[in-house]
Amino acid sequence: MSTTLLALYRQPEGGAEGLATFLRRYETEHLPLIREVPGLRALRVGRVVQAFGQSDLVLVARLVFDDHAALDAALASEPMRAAGRTLREIAPGTVTTVVIEPDHVLSWGDGAAGGDDAA
Amino acid sequence: MSTTLLALYRQPEGGAEGLATFLRRYETEHLPLIREVPGLRALRVGRVVQAFGQSDLVLVARLVFDDHAALDAALASEPMRAAGRTLREIAPGTVTTVVIEPDHVLSWGDGAAGGDDAA
Repeated sequence: MSTTLLALYRQPEGGAEGLATFLRRYETEHLPLIREVPGLRALRVGRVVQAFGQSDLVLVARLVFDDHAALDAALASEPMRAAGRTLREIAPGTVTTVVIEPDHVLSWGDGAAGGDDAA
Repeated sequence: MSTTLLALYRQPEGGAEGLATFLRRYETEHLPLIREVPGLRALRVGRVVQAFGQSDLVLVARLVFDDHAALDAALASEPMRAAGRTLREIAPGTVTTVVIEPDHVLSWGDGAAGGDDAA
């Protein structure tokens, strides 16, 4: 069963310019560290293009690990700690991060048995 | 390029009992309607088991469509409208729904070329 770290990024201060700055730093400073995290099987980054109801989310990243133990090892790694430090700089107070375990009873569809896309 | 409808559910009122009631109604009243939505390629439901920083999220659902046109058709369908009505009953004010388009430049890893798991 895969375990997913889901990072939800809200609109930063500074309007369109603030968002552009965040996205640039996210790609050039944060992601290079994330790519070095041990045990990270896949990274999925998506842009929020529409919202129903009130939302200031702009970006969603899913970091997929084989299981919770792999996630725990990743969280303790130096690249992840460094990545966390960059986040506190480039997304201060605008990111919520949660750990998700897929519910295979409720899920269905293409590749449901796979781990990568679960949750 | 796939398009994902991401539904983020927050802790309902009523503590553990309120959460159990929500989950039961989500499974028995909401999901049967979601499964009938035309063009829905996959549904991934995950339980939030841990949070870093402040978060009251308890459940995350990803509805995956082939593209934005398929999502638009789904949103206009009768099953999706009925599903929306159930949500207003079982998760009043506790759900945020956004549309996500995957960023294939920033994403990588297992099956990155696939559509289902993108975003």
